[in-house]
Amino acid sequence: MEENFRIEKDFLGEKKIDIHSYYGIQTLRAKENFDITKTSISLFPNFIKSLAKVKKACALTNYELGDLNDKQRDAIIQACNEIIDGKFKDQFIVDPIQGGAGTSTNMNVNEVIANRALEILGEKRSSYDVIHPNNHVNMSQSTNDVYPTAIKLTLYELIYKLKDSLRYLRDSFEEKSVEFKDVLKMGRTQLQDAVPMTLGQEFKTFAIMVDEDIYRLRDAQALLKEVNLGATAIGTGINTKKEYRRKVINNLREVTGIDYESAGDLIEATQDTGAFVHISGILKRVAIKISKICNDLRLLSSGPRAGLNEINLPPMQPGSSIMPGKVNPVIPEVVNQVAFEVIGADATISIACEGGQLQLNVFEPLVAYKLFTSINMMRRSFYSLAEKCIKGITANEDVCMENILNSVTLVTCLNPILGYEKSSALAKEALATNKRVYDIILEQELFTKEELDELLHPKNMVSNYEGN
Amino acid sequence: MEENFRIEKDFLGEKKIDIHSYYGIQTLRAKENFDITKTSISLFPNFIKSLAKVKKACALTNYELGDLNDKQRDAIIQACNEIIDGKFKDQFIVDPIQGGAGTSTNMNVNEVIANRALEILGEKRSSYDVIHPNNHVNMSQSTNDVYPTAIKLTLYELIYKLKDSLRYLRDSFEEKSVEFKDVLKMGRTQLQDAVPMTLGQEFKTFAIMVDEDIYRLRDAQALLKEVNLGATAIGTGINTKKEYRRKVINNLREVTGIDYESAGDLIEATQDTGAFVHISGILKRVAIKISKICNDLRLLSSGPRAGLNEINLPPMQPGSSIMPGKVNPVIPEVVNQVAFEVIGADATISIACEGGQLQLNVFEPLVAYKLFTSINMMRRSFYSLAEKCIKGITANEDVCMENILNSVTLVTCLNPILGYEKSSALAKEALATNKRVYDIILEQELFTKEELDELLHPKNMVSNYEGN
Amino acid sequence: MEENFRIEKDFLGEKKIDIHSYYGIQTLRAKENFDITKTSISLFPNFIKSLAKVKKACALTNYELGDLNDKQRDAIIQACNEIIDGKFKDQFIVDPIQGGAGTSTNMNVNEVIANRALEILGEKRSSYDVIHPNNHVNMSQSTNDVYPTAIKLTLYELIYKLKDSLRYLRDSFEEKSVEFKDVLKMGRTQLQDAVPMTLGQEFKTFAIMVDEDIYRLRDAQALLKEVNLGATAIGTGINTKKEYRRKVINNLREVTGIDYESAGDLIEATQDTGAFVHISGILKRVAIKISKICNDLRLLSSGPRAGLNEINLPPMQPGSSIMPGKVNPVIPEVVNQVAFEVIGADATISIACEGGQLQLNVFEPLVAYKLFTSINMMRRSFYSLAEKCIKGITANEDVCMENILNSVTLVTCLNPILGYEKSSALAKEALATNKRVYDIILEQELFTKEELDELLHPKNMVSNYEGN
Amino acid sequence: MEENFRIEKDFLGEKKIDIHSYYGIQTLRAKENFDITKTSISLFPNFIKSLAKVKKACALTNYELGDLNDKQRDAIIQACNEIIDGKFKDQFIVDPIQGGAGTSTNMNVNEVIANRALEILGEKRSSYDVIHPNNHVNMSQSTNDVYPTAIKLTLYELIYKLKDSLRYLRDSFEEKSVEFKDVLKMGRTQLQDAVPMTLGQEFKTFAIMVDEDIYRLRDAQALLKEVNLGATAIGTGINTKKEYRRKVINNLREVTGIDYESAGDLIEATQDTGAFVHISGILKRVAIKISKICNDLRLLSSGPRAGLNEINLPPMQPGSSIMPGKVNPVIPEVVNQVAFEVIGADATISIACEGGQLQLNVFEPLVAYKLFTSINMMRRSFYSLAEKCIKGITANEDVCMENILNSVTLVTCLNPILGYEKSSALAKEALATNKRVYDIILEQELFTKEELDELLHPKNMVSNYEGN
Repeated sequence: MEENFRIEKDFLGEKKIDIHSYYGIQTLRAKENFDITKTSISLFPNFIKSLAKVKKACALTNYELGDLNDKQRDAIIQACNEIIDGKFKDQFIVDPIQGGAGTSTNMNVNEVIANRALEILGEKRSSYDVIHPNNHVNMSQSTNDVYPTAIKLTLYELIYKLKDSLRYLRDSFEEKSVEFKDVLKMGRTQLQDAVPMTLGQEFKTFAIMVDEDIYRLRDAQALLKEVNLGATAIGTGINTKKEYRRKVINNLREVTGIDYESAGDLIEATQDTGAFVHISGILKRVAIKISKICNDLRLLSSGPRAGLNEINLPPMQPGSSIMPGKVNPVIPEVVNQVAFEVIGADATISIACEGGQLQLNVFEPLVAYKLFTSINMMRRSFYSLAEKCIKGITANEDVCMENILNSVTLVTCLNPILGYEKSSALAKEALATNKRVYDIILEQELFTKEELDELLHPKNMVSNYEGN
Repeated sequence: MEENFRIEKDFLGEKKIDIHSYYGIQTLRAKENFDITKTSISLFPNFIKSLAKVKKACALTNYELGDLNDKQRDAIIQACNEIIDGKFKDQFIVDPIQGGAGTSTNMNVNEVIANRALEILGEKRSSYDVIHPNNHVNMSQSTNDVYPTAIKLTLYELIYKLKDSLRYLRDSFEEKSVEFKDVLKMGRTQLQDAVPMTLGQEFKTFAIMVDEDIYRLRDAQALLKEVNLGATAIGTGINTKKEYRRKVINNLREVTGIDYESAGDLIEATQDTGAFVHISGILKRVAIKISKICNDLRLLSSGPRAGLNEINLPPMQPGSSIMPGKVNPVIPEVVNQVAFEVIGADATISIACEGGQLQLNVFEPLVAYKLFTSINMMRRSFYSLAEKCIKGITANEDVCMENILNSVTLVTCLNPILGYEKSSALAKEALATNKRVYDIILEQELFTKEELDELLHPKNMVSNYEGN
Repeated sequence: MEENFRIEKDFLGEKKIDIHSYYGIQTLRAKENFDITKTSISLFPNFIKSLAKVKKACALTNYELGDLNDKQRDAIIQACNEIIDGKFKDQFIVDPIQGGAGTSTNMNVNEVIANRALEILGEKRSSYDVIHPNNHVNMSQSTNDVYPTAIKLTLYELIYKLKDSLRYLRDSFEEKSVEFKDVLKMGRTQLQDAVPMTLGQEFKTFAIMVDEDIYRLRDAQALLKEVNLGATAIGTGINTKKEYRRKVINNLREVTGIDYESAGDLIEATQDTGAFVHISGILKRVAIKISKICNDLRLLSSGPRAGLNEINLPPMQPGSSIMPGKVNPVIPEVVNQVAFEVIGADATISIACEGGQLQLNVFEPLVAYKLFTSINMMRRSFYSLAEKCIKGITANEDVCMENILNSVTLVTCLNPILGYEKSSALAKEALATNKRVYDIILEQELFTKEELDELLHPKNMVSNYEGN
Repeated sequence: MEENFRIEKDFLGEKKIDIHSYYGIQTLRAKENFDITKTSISLFPNFIKSLAKVKKACALTNYELGDLNDKQRDAIIQACNEIIDGKFKDQFIVDPIQGGAGTSTNMNVNEVIANRALEILGEKRSSYDVIHPNNHVNMSQSTNDVYPTAIKLTLYELIYKLKDSLRYLRDSFEEKSVEFKDVLKMGRTQLQDAVPMTLGQEFKTFAIMVDEDIYRLRDAQALLKEVNLGATAIGTGINTKKEYRRKVINNLREVTGIDYESAGDLIEATQDTGAFVHISGILKRVAIKISKICNDLRLLSSGPRAGLNEINLPPMQPGSSIMPGKVNPVIPEVVNQVAFEVIGADATISIACEGGQLQLNVFEPLVAYKLFTSINMMRRSFYSLAEKCIKGITANEDVCMENILNSVTLVTCLNPILGYEKSSALAKEALATNKRVYDIILEQELFTKEELDELLHPKNMVSNYEGN
């Protein structure tokens, strides 16, 4: 009867490995040691691919430097390429939240590549004298440079996609700003009636807010181009050849098509998590602004009868198990929650980064997990917000106009003519008598009807700049 | 010519001290070393008094155990009593945020007591052979037990006062709940019209929320009664006599009138900041709920014309430098900000407490500073909220009733009779035709007018329980 | 050819449903609307079961009140029981993070129960005139009382299990405290050598810290017993009979075996998330303390040659892809990360709870998701910490003792005899000359060797209390 | 008898004002309404000056546009200049934490300028028909553009100073990196011995970390140059002339000497707090990294006998009230606490910015207060860290070298020759036998002594790059 396992050993002992698995003993130990999220790193396909790209760049470099032979090189490169093409997903089994600063992830990749490469060469699995996870696949590398480099590659791509989703969202606001450009409405400060504006201006504001965030993400993305590949254990480059550092970055550019650079100081770059804190801060910035926008959408669509009721969100689902006909702003509500998740993730990342000690931050697995998750959630929710909410918004023009005509702070525009005291008195009287300021001013014969129609016309108050 | 300074020395060297100062060399060093907040511990008079109470309890105990003579005891006790009475405020000069885990604060107190005691005895300042800050005033003590014990005494008192402010606030909500008990209005879920309730119920909710928090504060306060006095350096009680621990707690009870207890394990109690994290969490809970209430008040009073406008907050100040007649909900706004401050303080305290290492948490000065500040801000703002806002709130009954009559979800109450689908159809029609559901139902002759007046009367929907 | 779908409709239109699905149109809409986490509520089996228990209690009550007939009752109860037994897991497909305040989760459950009940009765799916998701399964209910009640039931059970894991962890520390009771070592404050203690005391401290947290969790758990079942839409109990509220709680107790109570005021209870903030605060407290313990374990086991090296953690896996023989404290490291996750979750929960408006907090789905996830991660990691780390810890007694004998602050115990100044001078000399204080004191003939051996013996410094 | 007060009134009524005060009724109302921090805006002199600069730019513009006459202009400008010169500090009495979105601060400034201008003109105070706080001083302005503009001016200056402090700190690390460039020591990852490096490299890392933060602050500072002056109430520029917006920015540049720009869209700029969130995120980034550095300094100087003891921090004060000779790392400890304060402030700012609604964020006063305070604390503590700690650090070279020679992971460098397995076996044996790897390798005759001395020499392991 055939055995369905093979034996591997390390300096702590032996373990049986499923005969069909590409991973080996260290992956299995890690799988047993870390059972936190009930998921695995395969949750993040981009990350697996980035790890394989880094491994490929390293193998190419080791070959160029004469440290891998043709056969080893070809087999390792083919294995990497297959992973980059999305194969062997089920072989990446370690928990994304792990001790050991990512060594388990790195060894999972090393072992899968080694055994797939052995298979390509017609060798049996675990024949590590031919291709060894540490000696060959991980040659000139340490988890401490491979792992953060792969995180940065992944973040670079994820942010690229996140910006796409923000552009899509921005465009949806932009379209509405055009559609609503003639809908006059009251602006509000501190939830109190202020002065007139257009609903188009309100949506244009949202578009601009999102647009600015795209720029900030772009700036932050640039920080990700600096990687510490070649640093090995602590940044001194121990166990690399002198030319390795330069060559491996060139190969990484070749493999990824992106102009990554070697960090100025590899010891610093190996322990510093500044870029991750920075990215997280920018993500939080995006989250806060989107959350504010969703709050506004919920507020402006409150009602339908006992709320502001200036806009209508498209109904997505019945809103209540008990109240017939109730429809809720469910899409903004879920986007708010994504934003809160991202704000909390920033707290987690901050404390994790603060906790780094000496030559390494051991909490990078958590930092990567939270960043990847935050970005994925945001991207999905932004498309959803644009598609299922913004695009279907309609305006209640009558309500909007009625709000202006009833408003008391409309007297603001008379300030330069009447002065603050007189204008205040008019406002006060309007409130006390429950009349419109227009009518009171007419009664007091402060202006003729014609003057007043000109002075108090909301259209004349919504934009006051040269060339705007 | 008379010198205007005296010389003190420690194992790091000598320093000149102002001849009139009660503090000594260690206080002066700390003053020079820590220049962070531009304030001093005298910002918290309760804390200074608590420190003096602890010192007094220790002196009484050392005397009982024969380690201080009558003269020393009397002088030290008198000095403590004077500080408890509020004297020498200007002598407590060290920054509340300090390195050294509170040693500077403890030594500031030790030195002031020593020099005042010397003065009482007719001795010159710095005559430490007679009464020494460390050997006599700090006898059988370490910063590591005195300092956290004094923090707990202070928190106990501050929370006592905080509960008073919450009771005052609760009562203000209670009064309004009675005043508004017959004001019918729409309840809202997700900012969408839901089903009827009374404005009295809305305010009663606020009263109950606050009331529950008082209970939670009371529970948390109980955790503060456990102190580590007698622990000295790390909790082993080094340099105390065996009976000291028991006696000093008895004396502390005597001095404070509160039944403090010795922690079960002094090593644990010396390094554990669980009680501070706990208190901070409860303060955050209070802050979150008060902030939610203030958000609601701002929402309900939004307008006056283009908002919900169900209630009016008393006007406290002109609301705008440009918009005449505008009045803002400034009191809830400032209370919101206090709440945000407390939420951020909890983040600070969490990270500070997580950062404790081995036998001590060196960041206790920051923890104390944040807790004291949070509580003080909350207390002041709660009185202000009650006094300057809640008590003056009035209701716009007409607006409230109109909102109910216009509402669509009023059909909810017909569910049990007509079923969810039929009720939904009625709601949908009301929305589409911009009619009242009442009129539509009449038109469809689903009920007689008499039946409908009974069925749809808001009063019949606002309380549905036995004996409520 | 047979159709493989059926049609359902609601007031927004029609949808095709897979013929084999128990869920219906509202579940499907929600599934399409919310695509955030790529998971579903079935991730939390306890939660699904809790929802079914609540539904069962409601059905029993509606039957008792004459609003369901025998057939309906039996079918609904059987469907509920089957879900409680773990069936139909794959039918709970909505995303745990959702807009609509949990309505989608509630409707998912209502629809599955309705269709399974119909199946039991031999009816075709969607024959809602016989058993309707809203009219029968959700009778006398709203999402706004069912959903938070089910969250509380779930939390109650999860915390029960969490306490078990903490007890297990506490016991592991307790065992070590006994094992190490005679291992003398230096205590450290501020990472600086302080005074002697035993390694047993150090581990006992950890045991006590954990033990206290169990009590705090127990207190917090009590807050979960207060539920708002019977509140329906906003707490006024609309669409329930007067006796319903009392009866449904009795039935809930019966179904769960736990003495749940009706909240004092259902309007307050429906909008208040105080209990969730509270639980989250306590979880954060636990996380902070466990994180501190893990930091200490990593510090004490630092080395093996260039660190403190007082204890050895059991090696769990090779620690480096490049450094042979390196072993890392991977288990404490992963527990630290879980703690940071929980701290961040508390930030998320705080902002979500602060954001509640008027009669409901629409962000409860996120709050539940974070609480459930935090507790699950903590529980798993605590068992892991006990099993894979604490139980295998060994002590390096020689290193510990050597540290004491070399220490300078050993002079502390001479304070009461020599005074602070003289003792300081001895300490200073020891440091300057790189000698032991013992030898210096002997040289200066301050005490005889016999006296000194007694005075300076570390054993005499580690516990100084009556009856300890 | 002379009156010692004057009367002012607004639309809410009258108040008595101290005859000597420059502020007026609105300031006084605000003073009474907000009693939160027990401080006033005069705590931030830069802020007061920035407000005066904005007012000056506005007055110049209003004059140019013909809306102020020569006399008014000259008096207002002189009053502004005097405030910019630091006068009238005691007249800025409103609490920095206030409701009303900064209106009280703006009116405090308007009133002081108006009354001082009246005084300059020989008029009595409160003669507002001549120069009116709203009509003249606040002409063409609203709090909603003046206030955030002044906050940005202040932040710009404060960050300028903060960068100076960071440069000073960076230089202090740089100096040490040169001083310690030949001190060989063990690098550590995960607190476990890793591979050799120099102490100079360790300090150079700190220098680079700080340097990068200076660049990030510079980038963030650029965001502050975009101001919304001219927006007035909500960004529509109501009550300004068409040319005002352009001219006022030119005047602001003139007055400040800094090239401020008008935001692209003033409605967006008036409600968006993105720049503040951004700055706060960068400050948090700085705080996290400095805190990490302080943690490292405390760790490396732990001891003096039972710790790592690789470096000595200069002793700043006796470290204990009970333990003679103990010296603590008090300066890094206090800087850690400042960092925690800043991290918490970021949480506060995040929640405040998320809470903005519609056309304005009413919580800007809190945001400004936290940012100003954070920066001030950081700046002070960074100078202190450089001056009182870094500059005095000395190295314990013997300890550092001994740690290398004893280390086991020194075998890492033999990996490329012996392979990972053989090297692991050597490491394992060294640990088991408590020998040095050097000796074991010699015993096993794997290399000659000459080869080994070359291979294992730490100097050969600390830098492995081309041209480094």
